[in-house]
Amino acid sequence: MSPTATRLAEMTSAEAAASAQAGRIVVLPVGALEQHGPAMPLGTDTYRADAVAERVVSRLPDDAVLGPTLPIGVSPHHLGFPGTVSLTTRTFTALVREIAVGLHRQGFHRILVVTGHGGNNASLTTIAQDLLASDPDLEFAWTPLTSVAADIVRSAGVSAVHGHCGEAETAQMLEVAPDLVRRDLLEPGPTRPEDLDPLSALARSVSHPTLTRSWDDLTPNGVLGDPRQATEQLGAELIETITERICDFLGRWAQL
Amino acid sequence: MSPTATRLAEMTSAEAAASAQAGRIVVLPVGALEQHGPAMPLGTDTYRADAVAERVVSRLPDDAVLGPTLPIGVSPHHLGFPGTVSLTTRTFTALVREIAVGLHRQGFHRILVVTGHGGNNASLTTIAQDLLASDPDLEFAWTPLTSVAADIVRSAGVSAVHGHCGEAETAQMLEVAPDLVRRDLLEPGPTRPEDLDPLSALARSVSHPTLTRSWDDLTPNGVLGDPRQATEQLGAELIETITERICDFLGRWAQL
Amino acid sequence: MSPTATRLAEMTSAEAAASAQAGRIVVLPVGALEQHGPAMPLGTDTYRADAVAERVVSRLPDDAVLGPTLPIGVSPHHLGFPGTVSLTTRTFTALVREIAVGLHRQGFHRILVVTGHGGNNASLTTIAQDLLASDPDLEFAWTPLTSVAADIVRSAGVSAVHGHCGEAETAQMLEVAPDLVRRDLLEPGPTRPEDLDPLSALARSVSHPTLTRSWDDLTPNGVLGDPRQATEQLGAELIETITERICDFLGRWAQL
Amino acid sequence: MSPTATRLAEMTSAEAAASAQAGRIVVLPVGALEQHGPAMPLGTDTYRADAVAERVVSRLPDDAVLGPTLPIGVSPHHLGFPGTVSLTTRTFTALVREIAVGLHRQGFHRILVVTGHGGNNASLTTIAQDLLASDPDLEFAWTPLTSVAADIVRSAGVSAVHGHCGEAETAQMLEVAPDLVRRDLLEPGPTRPEDLDPLSALARSVSHPTLTRSWDDLTPNGVLGDPRQATEQLGAELIETITERICDFLGRWAQL
Amino acid sequence: MSPTATRLAEMTSAEAAASAQAGRIVVLPVGALEQHGPAMPLGTDTYRADAVAERVVSRLPDDAVLGPTLPIGVSPHHLGFPGTVSLTTRTFTALVREIAVGLHRQGFHRILVVTGHGGNNASLTTIAQDLLASDPDLEFAWTPLTSVAADIVRSAGVSAVHGHCGEAETAQMLEVAPDLVRRDLLEPGPTRPEDLDPLSALARSVSHPTLTRSWDDLTPNGVLGDPRQATEQLGAELIETITERICDFLGRWAQL
Amino acid sequence: MSPTATRLAEMTSAEAAASAQAGRIVVLPVGALEQHGPAMPLGTDTYRADAVAERVVSRLPDDAVLGPTLPIGVSPHHLGFPGTVSLTTRTFTALVREIAVGLHRQGFHRILVVTGHGGNNASLTTIAQDLLASDPDLEFAWTPLTSVAADIVRSAGVSAVHGHCGEAETAQMLEVAPDLVRRDLLEPGPTRPEDLDPLSALARSVSHPTLTRSWDDLTPNGVLGDPRQATEQLGAELIETITERICDFLGRWAQL
Repeated sequence: MSPTATRLAEMTSAEAAASAQAGRIVVLPVGALEQHGPAMPLGTDTYRADAVAERVVSRLPDDAVLGPTLPIGVSPHHLGFPGTVSLTTRTFTALVREIAVGLHRQGFHRILVVTGHGGNNASLTTIAQDLLASDPDLEFAWTPLTSVAADIVRSAGVSAVHGHCGEAETAQMLEVAPDLVRRDLLEPGPTRPEDLDPLSALARSVSHPTLTRSWDDLTPNGVLGDPRQATEQLGAELIETITERICDFLGRWAQL
Repeated sequence: MSPTATRLAEMTSAEAAASAQAGRIVVLPVGALEQHGPAMPLGTDTYRADAVAERVVSRLPDDAVLGPTLPIGVSPHHLGFPGTVSLTTRTFTALVREIAVGLHRQGFHRILVVTGHGGNNASLTTIAQDLLASDPDLEFAWTPLTSVAADIVRSAGVSAVHGHCGEAETAQMLEVAPDLVRRDLLEPGPTRPEDLDPLSALARSVSHPTLTRSWDDLTPNGVLGDPRQATEQLGAELIETITERICDFLGRWAQL
Repeated sequence: MSPTATRLAEMTSAEAAASAQAGRIVVLPVGALEQHGPAMPLGTDTYRADAVAERVVSRLPDDAVLGPTLPIGVSPHHLGFPGTVSLTTRTFTALVREIAVGLHRQGFHRILVVTGHGGNNASLTTIAQDLLASDPDLEFAWTPLTSVAADIVRSAGVSAVHGHCGEAETAQMLEVAPDLVRRDLLEPGPTRPEDLDPLSALARSVSHPTLTRSWDDLTPNGVLGDPRQATEQLGAELIETITERICDFLGRWAQL
Repeated sequence: MSPTATRLAEMTSAEAAASAQAGRIVVLPVGALEQHGPAMPLGTDTYRADAVAERVVSRLPDDAVLGPTLPIGVSPHHLGFPGTVSLTTRTFTALVREIAVGLHRQGFHRILVVTGHGGNNASLTTIAQDLLASDPDLEFAWTPLTSVAADIVRSAGVSAVHGHCGEAETAQMLEVAPDLVRRDLLEPGPTRPEDLDPLSALARSVSHPTLTRSWDDLTPNGVLGDPRQATEQLGAELIETITERICDFLGRWAQL
Repeated sequence: MSPTATRLAEMTSAEAAASAQAGRIVVLPVGALEQHGPAMPLGTDTYRADAVAERVVSRLPDDAVLGPTLPIGVSPHHLGFPGTVSLTTRTFTALVREIAVGLHRQGFHRILVVTGHGGNNASLTTIAQDLLASDPDLEFAWTPLTSVAADIVRSAGVSAVHGHCGEAETAQMLEVAPDLVRRDLLEPGPTRPEDLDPLSALARSVSHPTLTRSWDDLTPNGVLGDPRQATEQLGAELIETITERICDFLGRWAQL
Repeated sequence: MSPTATRLAEMTSAEAAASAQAGRIVVLPVGALEQHGPAMPLGTDTYRADAVAERVVSRLPDDAVLGPTLPIGVSPHHLGFPGTVSLTTRTFTALVREIAVGLHRQGFHRILVVTGHGGNNASLTTIAQDLLASDPDLEFAWTPLTSVAADIVRSAGVSAVHGHCGEAETAQMLEVAPDLVRRDLLEPGPTRPEDLDPLSALARSVSHPTLTRSWDDLTPNGVLGDPRQATEQLGAELIETITERICDFLGRWAQL
């Protein structure tokens, strides 16, 4: 293993053993294969998760190792749009849990899942809960991307209704995979509560109670917010901030 | 059915049919059977969920009906303390999903789960996700209790480290089940980050990345915060605010 | 814990530990949410199970503790009538098994399920079977209600065709929840074999072979027997006999 | 198909189609592979189920067809004795349900399971319940053997404690597979309540509450009752009565 | 146990214990209930598996014991023809795995499944894989029939398109169950690639990539090849060769 | 979508819809994360599957689209070596099946899985079987790599015992990811039957009966064969032949 070897898939069995022995944290990128409006690719969440995970691991090569990318997640709310493929929460959780338990069995005892897709968050939490009972010695953490830098998003002045394919997500893609953004096809979805149908407006008016809607009930083009306002600068700032904050967490964790 | 009949379990088959026909929203209280420190009962979360759900339904008798209470939830993080009984997330989600689908089959198309236990939140989200794919005509919402009134909790001046069995939860119990609080046994758990072990302190220092810990790693007595500071007034205000805000949501939903 | 504390949900963690330590038997009431004809509520089986379980535990406070009530059971045969919600046998058994195993983990090693609904009997038996293999140190028993006092029912002179919502069940409700019986709506279902369609008549002519039918094939109003013949006296005698016999069993068990 | 073809496995595809078309009832023998004391074989329950099912079908060739034999059942209570192999209730029920649904898909709409093993009864009931919801047009019945002729057993004067490998079961084997009974090895197990340990005595003192015990807690040699009292005459009478009564049921069913 | 006792179902508990103790290998015949064209019975694969397994065990009585026959397998590709009943791969694998684990628990540590149906092969492989992780001390092997003697089949000069119900399978039935072959109904299915529809021809033109087709897309009568060319001599040679080669393997295994 | 866009993850929702509409076949690379001896990386099977799948799709851009890579497979036989992570066959099959069904739902009706790992073959077959019953309109095929070019491997003169990490696999890695092969660490494993322990030698002496062994019982260093004999030329020839033959199949399929 060269001193810079950071991917588990690139290591030999002996190198993996050494990484586990050294207590390195496995960083697992998890994405989705789902509609991202007229201008962004189905793999948007995977590209973003991959990019952040790679940056994190490359900055902390002694503390972390990059695990395999899971390119499909929990996306039932996007099934109304072509190209979306979703796992049931049962299969997604079985998949991630078996990987976590398998890594643990091979000597890794710390795992950080980096998810580029918010639809995976709840399943990742249930996995963490079940692992507390079944594998109490395994430390399992997960992190989303955009909400780690929610303050940056807010100060960037995004639309009142904003989210999937909106300013913040599009900006990140301009940073990590600019060639995959069809800029000429960028178009806004609903940007104000009054652009939504009444049930969607109600659902988004409060964080609790929580009423999950299908995306095709929320927006005709799969977009929430105005991606035309996305800039490379915002994208770079978001990706940097997210990377930095995850590195900060991971670095402190590695010291314990 | 008398005009004030609000519990599904008390209705005859014909009354249930009429309730479904009228579009009434089924409110399902969900709790937990888990340790609540030296002074509060195992059923604390169930008592609080029941109390709020009952108040909500009694204020909106034309819009809502009270479903059966589920007294056990997802509590693996409390298994280190006696008396805690937890369901796996798989069984908890199968249970709630079958009830939701069963109510839908009988003509109810709106369900609001009121959970007194935060450990159930992620599972409720995964249920909502899976129902989007399997039962797209069913509107399924859920709500926690305390975080609906997070502003009230903050302004009450709770401890820096605060949560399970802390000021806000204890106060709610003083409102809804005062006889079940052993006031002489109230004692604080960790109240400051420096009271926590380093990994717990790290885990609670940010909301993301998220690292779930067992409660017995967090606190020696099962408490976070200082329940001795809980007051009946705060409890009454919290329960009233939570009830009001859920009623506001549910009332607007019922109009759609 | 006051000397009379009998509900697990009302106990603190320490009190639960003491109850387990003392070898107390956990009594779990299990019911159903299903049609009970024109005059009785959906929760009939739950109310009856709760009432008997409470009486049993209150008479044997040193030997027993009351666990949480499960308000939904296995009722596919009643799905043709409004308001019925049923669990699959797979989910019902997973639920009860996880509770049993969870109580065992917390030090309780004897459990008695009191089911107010006969549709749960077979699942309770399969749970007991699987627990023999997985948790051989756990003693798991279950009991129905009415058939514990079958001799009393017989001597009361019930209809030839008799059962769900019939004389014996209605009488029990007159004892445990009289306000929930709409006496003016009591009406008979089939009371004689010749009132049944031929397949139902065949099915009920012998106990084996056993051919299970949907209730909507058996009876137009969901009733079998003549609930107008139910009396408070019979109800009181049935509930008392059932309680007594279960107490007798439980008391002897506790001595071993 | 010759006029006497009665086994599904012996039929061609076209003959099976004709049988389904004719409305013939599929009779499925189900047994067990479990200890039967020092003198009887592991397959005792399968041999008995096969024998009765064959006799039934041969007497009603126009109404019935013999399905494949399932030679393993639910026997966790016998696992303490060598040779016993048990399925979990989950797998046993999945197996029988898939066969039932598969036969239904091929045009058969009536199924009678003949079980030689009482440990399968509860699972067969849960299968019947779940089929009511999933396949309402399928008529699914099941029958045990010995308890169909309980009156004959009683009048034969069996031991007070009697059952597995006892007089009645051994007698049946003397009728259907006499060469497999090692008469010189027949020996009694407990025959009186006082021969049992106290918990077993309690468990068998009433039919409800029901407390299932492992067989190795009940009897040192796996036998309940005194098989030395079994006679060929009793065996012949039992098998004939059971066959006759099942035929009576099946014949009437076929007329509907 | 007489010196020639070879069936597990015929043994007493003590005899089974002795067999396990002696290290005897359990031979499990597994078949199918599926269409076998106009002239052969649904149970063809089971009869053939049974016959070979019986011959193998009878030749190696000190090394092997005959386990129970499983008469239904994985046959979704034949569901388009009447009489076929198939298990899902999930239930088939659960069934065989529980039997294997159960035998292991009773002291047997070597199992050989003899499958008469190729549709079971993949599931048997997945069972073997999962057992490597869960029961590493158990040695689990499986074998098909016809492909063990592929050289004999080739030298017999079968059709270019050949397989299910073809020359080799029909010949085997002429050896093991001649009365169940309706010789007057034997008729060929497709025998040349050009008799197949283009997608089927493509699928069968290479062994990989592998594209599984439903049998009703492959052949109008359920047959591949020309069963009229089957002879008793070929059947005897095939069965003898298969038996011999399995015996050779099993005998060497038993010496280790 | 540029005319050469071939990755599903890079397409927008509309482009995916157009691809499905055009009948393009989805090619899914599936690998493994498992030990590959002292000199090759854990991701060896994934790199090879990716490389072939990419070449296939790039040669047939009008007929095929590249789906997401699944980087973990069924590898229980390698768990004895560090770094190996395996899914259960249940979870692996659920994962691939949900992806296949999800793609089908979005309009794709042909899927080709390219697996770089032989341990996935059986599960892929069971998936194909179950899809025949559940999704009869979906055409699902799969292919391994090396055995597609078995003739080339044979004529290259590999060791008598040869396979995992042997000449043929190592050669492929020299073609597709030469930087990840540590040539100085290449070392042989067993190369002759007499290098194996007796049970392994028996298991590999015939293709049927099939006895699966753990890799740590087969080889001390995880290698079978002599990877030092691998050449770039052989690697190029193998990869080209495999690619060509899969293209040939896929191209003919696309014409139907």
